[in-house]
Parts: sequence; C-alpha cells; structure tokens
Amino acid sequence: MTLLSSDTKGVFAISVTPFDDQGAIDFDSLDRATDFYLEKGSTGITVLGMMGEAPKMVQSEAVTIAERVIKRANGAPIVVGVSAPGLAAVAELSKKAMDLGAAGVMIAPPGNLKTNEQIIAYYGNACEAAGAGVPVVLQDFPHTTGVNISTDTLNTILAQNEQIVMLKHEDWPGLEKVTAVREAEKGGRRPISILCGNGALFLPEAMARGANGAMTGFAYIEMLRDVVAYAEKGDIDRAQDIYDAYLPLVCYEQQPGLGLAVRKYVLQKRGVIASEAMRKPGKGLTAAAKAEVDRIIARQEKRLKELG
Amino acid sequence: MTLLSSDTKGVFAISVTPFDDQGAIDFDSLDRATDFYLEKGSTGITVLGMMGEAPKMVQSEAVTIAERVIKRANGAPIVVGVSAPGLAAVAELSKKAMDLGAAGVMIAPPGNLKTNEQIIAYYGNACEAAGAGVPVVLQDFPHTTGVNISTDTLNTILAQNEQIVMLKHEDWPGLEKVTAVREAEKGGRRPISILCGNGALFLPEAMARGANGAMTGFAYIEMLRDVVAYAEKGDIDRAQDIYDAYLPLVCYEQQPGLGLAVRKYVLQKRGVIASEAMRKPGKGLTAAAKAEVDRIIARQEKRLKELG
Amino acid sequence: MTLLSSDTKGVFAISVTPFDDQGAIDFDSLDRATDFYLEKGSTGITVLGMMGEAPKMVQSEAVTIAERVIKRANGAPIVVGVSAPGLAAVAELSKKAMDLGAAGVMIAPPGNLKTNEQIIAYYGNACEAAGAGVPVVLQDFPHTTGVNISTDTLNTILAQNEQIVMLKHEDWPGLEKVTAVREAEKGGRRPISILCGNGALFLPEAMARGANGAMTGFAYIEMLRDVVAYAEKGDIDRAQDIYDAYLPLVCYEQQPGLGLAVRKYVLQKRGVIASEAMRKPGKGLTAAAKAEVDRIIARQEKRLKELG
Amino acid sequence: MTLLSSDTKGVFAISVTPFDDQGAIDFDSLDRATDFYLEKGSTGITVLGMMGEAPKMVQSEAVTIAERVIKRANGAPIVVGVSAPGLAAVAELSKKAMDLGAAGVMIAPPGNLKTNEQIIAYYGNACEAAGAGVPVVLQDFPHTTGVNISTDTLNTILAQNEQIVMLKHEDWPGLEKVTAVREAEKGGRRPISILCGNGALFLPEAMARGANGAMTGFAYIEMLRDVVAYAEKGDIDRAQDIYDAYLPLVCYEQQPGLGLAVRKYVLQKRGVIASEAMRKPGKGLTAAAKAEVDRIIARQEKRLKELG
Repeated sequence: MTLLSSDTKGVFAISVTPFDDQGAIDFDSLDRATDFYLEKGSTGITVLGMMGEAPKMVQSEAVTIAERVIKRANGAPIVVGVSAPGLAAVAELSKKAMDLGAAGVMIAPPGNLKTNEQIIAYYGNACEAAGAGVPVVLQDFPHTTGVNISTDTLNTILAQNEQIVMLKHEDWPGLEKVTAVREAEKGGRRPISILCGNGALFLPEAMARGANGAMTGFAYIEMLRDVVAYAEKGDIDRAQDIYDAYLPLVCYEQQPGLGLAVRKYVLQKRGVIASEAMRKPGKGLTAAAKAEVDRIIARQEKRLKELG
Repeated sequence: MTLLSSDTKGVFAISVTPFDDQGAIDFDSLDRATDFYLEKGSTGITVLGMMGEAPKMVQSEAVTIAERVIKRANGAPIVVGVSAPGLAAVAELSKKAMDLGAAGVMIAPPGNLKTNEQIIAYYGNACEAAGAGVPVVLQDFPHTTGVNISTDTLNTILAQNEQIVMLKHEDWPGLEKVTAVREAEKGGRRPISILCGNGALFLPEAMARGANGAMTGFAYIEMLRDVVAYAEKGDIDRAQDIYDAYLPLVCYEQQPGLGLAVRKYVLQKRGVIASEAMRKPGKGLTAAAKAEVDRIIARQEKRLKELG
Repeated sequence: MTLLSSDTKGVFAISVTPFDDQGAIDFDSLDRATDFYLEKGSTGITVLGMMGEAPKMVQSEAVTIAERVIKRANGAPIVVGVSAPGLAAVAELSKKAMDLGAAGVMIAPPGNLKTNEQIIAYYGNACEAAGAGVPVVLQDFPHTTGVNISTDTLNTILAQNEQIVMLKHEDWPGLEKVTAVREAEKGGRRPISILCGNGALFLPEAMARGANGAMTGFAYIEMLRDVVAYAEKGDIDRAQDIYDAYLPLVCYEQQPGLGLAVRKYVLQKRGVIASEAMRKPGKGLTAAAKAEVDRIIARQEKRLKELG
Repeated sequence: MTLLSSDTKGVFAISVTPFDDQGAIDFDSLDRATDFYLEKGSTGITVLGMMGEAPKMVQSEAVTIAERVIKRANGAPIVVGVSAPGLAAVAELSKKAMDLGAAGVMIAPPGNLKTNEQIIAYYGNACEAAGAGVPVVLQDFPHTTGVNISTDTLNTILAQNEQIVMLKHEDWPGLEKVTAVREAEKGGRRPISILCGNGALFLPEAMARGANGAMTGFAYIEMLRDVVAYAEKGDIDRAQDIYDAYLPLVCYEQQPGLGLAVRKYVLQKRGVIASEAMRKPGKGLTAAAKAEVDRIIARQEKRLKELG
C-alpha cells in the first residue's frame, strides 16, 4: 500500500460510478473502468469524487465502491473522496477507506464556509477527523463548492496541517494560483503535489507553471497521460498539440450539469461501462447532444491522425 | 403507530441531540429530553432536524436516535428528518424510520435547486424515495436552504404528491404564504396541515391566519402549547400576552448560528440535558451571552408572574 | 457642518424616501420626515440607505434628496449612503454629498467580494473613492450584502483606513462582534463609533456591550432615543422595559422584504408621510398585514401606558 | 436608424470600454475599437455590457459612450446595455440611448430574483421602464447573474413582452435551451433572434441548433464572422475548422475574472486600443499570462495558415 505524498505525480483518473438502468451499482463495469483507467496510463484512481456521484451514494455503497476499486487496482494508489456536510461522516469513511488500503482521502470544503478564518478552522477539524497521519488531498473547486480559498489562506492551511500533501487544483482562473503556491515554497513553505482538475482545462499551461499532473475525469486518459509526460520532458509544444486535438471535447464536457453525462456516454461508447445511466436527478444526453459528441470525437480522431 | 395526516395539529418539538463533552451521543439526556417535550405539552417530536445537528451524524447514529426516541415516546408521533444531498440516503433513512414506527418523515430541499421546475421535480423524486404512502412534511425554510418555493410552486407540489400532508412553514416573511396556502384550499386543493417553525417567530399571527400549530425547537414548550391552545380557542389576546412574555428569548434564539447554542444552554439550565455541548464546529455560548440569556429568562419569569 | 467622528453617538434615523403613488419623490413628505426624525430625538439622519430605496433612485435624484435633507436638517449631521456596484459612482456621489454639507458617507460592500483579502482591498479602494479625509461609515450587514467580514478583517480595514470612523453594526449574530471590536481597542487599535442597525434588534444588549447608539429605520425614534439614553445612564432595566414594549413591532419589521413596507405604513399612520407607496417592485402591505400592525401598535401603546 | 428585430442576425461585438492608465475613458481608442469591430465584420456593436465594465461607469459616462459609438458607427445598429439594480436607472438610460439613435437596449436580471414568478414580473417592469416599443435584448447569463431562467419561464416572458426581440444566449449548458426555444416557436410562439454570448463557446453547435449569430466580446471578430457565415451556408465543417483554430484562446478567455483582461491585452496587441488598463478593481495580466496568450496566438496563426 503506497500512501500519497508531496512527491506524488502523474495522472489520477476520477472514476465514474457505473449504474444499471435501475440505479443499482454495476460492479462489472466498475471493474472494467478500473482496468481501463490503469491500462490507459493512470498512475492512480480517485473514487467518490463529485464526478463519481458521491453524494448520491449511501455510506455502505461508498465503502463497497472503495473496497472494490482498491482490490481491483492491485496496488495502484486509490484516493477516496470523503467530503461530507459533517465531520463524523468524514471520520467514518476516512477510517474505513484507509483500513481498506486507500492511498489517501480527498476533502472539499462544505458550502457554508464564509471567511478565511472559517475555512482554516474547517481544515483543522477535517484533518483531525480524517485521522492522524492520513494523507489528505485538498480539493479547491470554488465554482462548485462556492468556497473561495485565497492563496494566503491556502498557505496557512498547508502550514498548519502537515498531512495535506496534495492540492487538487481547480480554482478558475487558477493559473496564477499554481504560480503563487510554488512561489510560497521558495519562501520556505514545505512543497506539495499539485494535480489539475477542472476537466483538464488549461492543463499544459498549469504544467508549465509547476503542476505535477492531472486528477480529473476526462474520458480520454491517454490525453492526460501524454500531455503530462511531454510537459514533464519539457516538450510543451508536443503536449499542446495533443491537448488541442482533444480541446473541443474538453470544452464540451465543461458544461456544468452536463459534463458527467458526456463522460459516461463516451465511456459507454468506448466499451468501458455498460450503461450511461446516472442516478436521479441526473439526466442522460439528448440525441442531439450525442450527435454533437460523436462529431467532436470523429474530428478528434482525424486530428490525432494528422498529428501522428 | 399513528401516522401524520393533514389533520395533525398541535405542537411538535424539534428535539436537540444531546452530546457529552467528547461529542458522543448522550442517550440518557435524549430520554430526558423526550420525556420533557411530552410532559410540557408536545403532541409529538421531530428528530434529526437541522436543530438536531442531523448533518453531523453518521447514518447509523441517525437510525439509533430515531429508534430511541420512537420507543421512549411510547406512541406519541415522531417525525424523522431525512433530508440529505442525495435520494439514496433519503430512501434508506426513510425506510428505516418508518419500519421503526415513525409517524412520517421531513424533507427540506437541497440547496442546488434553482428554478420552480427543479423544485417540483425534486419533490417528485423525494416522495418516491421516501416510499409510497409515507407521510411527508415539506420543510420550507429558504433562509437556511437557499431554496425559494413560490406559492404556486408549493401548490403544484402538493397537487402532484398526495403523501405530503404537512408544511413546516418557515418562509420569512411567510404570513402571506400561510394565507395563500389556505386560499388555495378554498379553490379546491386538498387541505394540508401547517405547523410553524422559525423558532415560533410570528406564531400568534400565523395561527390567526390558519396555521395548525408549531413545529420548532424553542426551549419553552409550554409557551408553544399555550399559544396554540389559546389561539385555537379564539382567545388571541391571551395567546399574544403569553407569547410576548417569551418574545425576548424567541428573538435572542433567532440569531443564525447561535440559536442552537441558546437552546442547549436553556435545556441544560432547566435540567433536561447534561451538557450544552455541540459537535464541532458548533460553539457554546460565551459567558457574556449566558449572562444575557439568564437575564432574559429572569425578566421572562417576572413577566409571566405579572400575567398570572 | 459637523463631520462624523469616532466620538459620534446617539441615534441616526435611517430615512425613508417618500414617493407619491406614481413613484415620484414626495419632497413635502421628505421634509416632514426630516422634521419628525429630529423632533423625536434623532441626533442625525442617514439618507439613501437600503431602507431609503437607494438602488431605485437615479443619481440626480440621490443628489437632490441629500441636498434637501441636509438643508432641512439645519445643521444636524446627515450621513449619505453612497454604496454602488462601482467605485466611480461612489466617488461621484460622495463628492457631491460632502460638497453639500454631509457629515460623512456610508459604504456597504458589493456582493461579489469573497475572501478577506478582497474585502480589505475593496475598502482601501472605496475610501480612496470617497475622498481623502471624508468620514466613512462601514455598513456591516451580511444578511443582505452576502459579504461576511470577520473581526480580524474588520480590524485590518480599520487599521488601514483612518477615515472609517464608524461601524454600522448589523452582523447577525453580532453581539460577540461588538465585544470583539471593543476588545481590539484595548489592544491598541484606535477607537471607533459603533451604531446598531438591524432594525434595533438586540439594541439593549449591544449597548451593554459597548455600542454607542443606533442607526436604523425603526419607525418609533422615541424608543431608540430612550433605550440609548437609559443604557448610557446605566439604567439597563428601564432601557429593556421600554425596548420590550416595542419588541413585537421590531420583530414584525424584521421580515425581509416586508420591513420597509411596515415602516412606511407606520409613518403614514403617524401622519409623517403622505403615502406608503414604494417604487416598483416594492409592494405595500395587504389588509391582513395592516390589521396585524394596527393590533401590535395598539398593544404597544397599552404596554407603554402600563410602564408609565 | 435601424431597430433590432426578431430578424436581426449576424455578429454584434461586445465593445470594451478603453481607459487610460488613470482610469479616464480613452475616446480615441473607443473610436478605433468601433471602427475595428465593424471593419472586421461586425453587423453591429453592443456597448455597456458586462465586458464593457458598465457597472464601473457613472451614468453621464454611460450616455457619453453610447453617443460616441452610435455616431461613429454611422448607421450600424448599436445595442446599449441598461442593466441596473433599479428600474429608474433602466428607464433613464434607455430613454437617453434610444433618443441618441440606439437600435435597442439589453437587460440582464438583477441578482436578487429567486422564483420564476419574480423573474417574469421583473421583465414586465423592465420592459415598461425601457419604454413602449423599445426593442429589448434579454441577456440570459446565469453564471454571472445568479438568476436561472427556465425554458418555460423564458417562453412566458416572451409571450408577455412583445418588445423582447432577441435572446443573448449564454446559459451554460445552453445548447438544449437553444433547441427548446426553437421548439416553442414550432408550437406557435412568435420567433425571436438568438445571438450567442459566452465568449463564443459552443458557437458552431449553437448555430447548428438554430442560433442566428453571436453577440460576444471575443477579440477576433473575424472568427465570429466566419463561423457564423459558414454555418449559415451550411458548411458546418469549415465553420468548425476555423472555430477550432481559435478555441485555445476562446478557452483562455473563459476564465472568470480574467477574460476581460485577456481581451484588452489582445486588442492592445492588435493596435486597437492604446492601453489594456481596466478601472479598479480590475487587474491586468501578469507577465506569465501575457506570455501564455502570446503563445496561444502564435499557435493560432500557424493553425490558421495550415487551414488556408
């Protein structure tokens, strides 16, 4: 069992949670998704993120999903999202996940935090709830959580909580935040790992500014893998060429409230999951939207061929 | 086991969840609180409301609390709050609560609903999740949920979901909504029960406009009981005299983020619960605030004596 | 022309803006309101606050209102609300108001500020826009603005902007904030004046904790005057007795979206303004609400007689 | 003077408002921008939109800007943004703009609207304020306004207000809304013009679903012109090829809080405006961001050359 650390880098796929058409978890598809993510180049997998429809699960399901993926991944690091309205639920799921062999837990702030002081206090409490020494990923996603973490606030949180080893960076615009987080390290703050979320939007720029990889649910893991790899090698132009080929789909997925449906549709189309079904109130794509995605993918493949 | 119906009226105390100073549930205090609410004149009790710190509980705790209070109440109707970010959690807790003998479940809308159409769709899904025929209390509390349900939206929801038999009314200002809900019944919509929340603010006026009682956590159940009883008898002046004696405390409790601390302090002071402790991040009252509450209560008792 | 200072205390009435039934400003009523506020015991008057329907005015109207009241008040200090979405509008109205003889300007934060840092930066810019040396009242009203100013943030703003001499305190719950602001002065921060808003809710408690008076639109100025005066003399019980007599109306006015309609109705009833009309989309009280207010006032007068 | 109508189509550039480094309006640059937009293929221009920093202007400046652009445009249709917190300001600016020869006015909903009913009532009042018969563009931009207009609400508004002839479509995801608005026309609702905002995101898809053009501030008008033109001719693949070449910049501009800075930088770079300065609290791009934009543009030009 490898734990997350500030040295962790690469690609962590945010896993979907596959359902059948009645809303039951489809574990065979979950296994295939696990295999798929790893085969396509994921370093690890994050389960029970927002894209995993985590809030739609009861806790026993959450535990079962974590267990299933951890076993199937066979040693690859699995991060378990444990965000919850209350600290007791954070504590319960975190303990179970770590006992099952998770590499760490991910915590986004609840939406009722207003001031810097409240955010700082929350992460103190949340780390205590997660458990001493448990590696924590701080998910900074104001577009969805409504909680805006300033760079100074982030630095204070990192200074006070050694166990936070990774930033899932999806503030928007956040390129300056990547830079600011790295600058603070020059000033003496311990280094952390930064993985980019946000459906991979701005991934090449973020890598160039010091990010260590991607943690997102974009359905073409191979793009994430290649962009991260070329960026690490310093071949930012090749990284950007590959990225741009996928950009129309990256954009199309960005539509709030629609992104997950697109991803499930693509994963179904690619033969990974049996059904694109989401739990209520999630809705699948219309025929018109599917045709748009089909067209985007066809153009994407053509473009990739041209790139060679 | 009596189920809630549109004829239900009287006082439903919103129960606190007592904790010890380490944050563990204090079941002896919970028993005493159950006895206290019923002895002081509650018709029934609502557990796991917002004031019951429901989001701070893990689901197994929630079930245990519901079970404990239902048994202790010995036949008095118990409503179980089952609000949750996802429908699966609503379904799970609702089934368990009803199996244990609850009189019904209470559901507040999740904060991400925006349009009338989304709110209407949510209550369709939520009633399905609660279970066919399970009596549902719709909690209309925009100040806290951020979801504003217009009168027409409410009427549509009631028309589409027969199992919603009660409105926990805490829109603010909501006196016009009480009137509008009653007007719609004259126009043919089936009648429902309206119990007032909001810490009993505006209770006499709401009763005069057609409410059927109170469902709130104000720590002096005897006030709720008497105001409802006198209002029902048509003696609105006596109801108002009693109400006004308690109004400074009603107001003091209204402070968002502080109300629960006041209630727990008062219940501890009255010997009902052993500790005023809340689960994190809840904070108790400062010494200055306790002195203010003590002074308000001393004046309240003097005023009640004058009233006779 | 007296300017506001950190020594300012007493009662500042938030003035309504009277309209005729077509929505035109009724300047005769505005004159009568000015006279009324001062005769009943206001130290000064604040125009163009939220309760003055300021956002419904075009800028030329705002200037005319400020000018009219400043002249009519004949030397009593007039505060002019200059809150606006942009700094240029703050600057323009502030300059005109001060040129006309205003005692200072009041600035609430725009709703798009998220982090402590953004709030601090805003008040730096806003003070610059208000003009060097112009006395500024910081309106801290998160319930309406959506901007939550922590005590540390407030202290930083006060330290950086000498011209902010007064806090219009209507954070809710804010009694602890009154205490914290006073505590910071013991630690060396320069003292400021604190006037209570929030429709006078918690006024006796706030005075006991160190507030210097009230700045609010409650329609019975005589209550504000007497509570502040008795509290200053240390007779907090007498202050509270008087306050409690008015508390049902204070509460009734607290209804968001209804408070101004209540105040205008009461002022019309008291013969101060000719019409209770508000500019669209403001709506007047229903007949049922007027009957409730009439009844509250009748009871209030009876209670005041009993008090002697 | 041509008025907007439901037949209006093509490209309306959302104009920046150029400032000098002291924050004064730079009218020479405004003239050059007006010329630039029209020379590059804009059908018309929209001034005083959100991207035009409208809330940072005092009203006299707003009128001056409208006047300047209307005159300079020499007959091309100019839309004037008149959104304001209050209806009086809507009325005043609308009257002045139309008297100066504007083609219509644009109105976004204020952020305090909650229910469908409130949104519908607002547009009734706003159209009355804009003036009888004045063509109105409804700006549907929930990401920024916080107001979510359901398709049924939109259809009701359109049915009740004949003078709303155009939808500035920037709901997100909104492709389904384009389809729904067009479907409602098949059901008998009068047709309206739909121009796409959102920085042109999803423009080819929106055109294919029935949009009539673009109204946005993307700094390469030539892209908007060509995509709209090819889409109208039915050559959606060519439209998409051109669009994709610009997509990295479209995306980069999408960063909330950064988009305008990018546009001003690009317009300065292209020699259109003298300074990229924004009024406070707007901040320009960092050196790192400028280098990113430079690189994106260099790649864009290369790609366009490849396309031929």
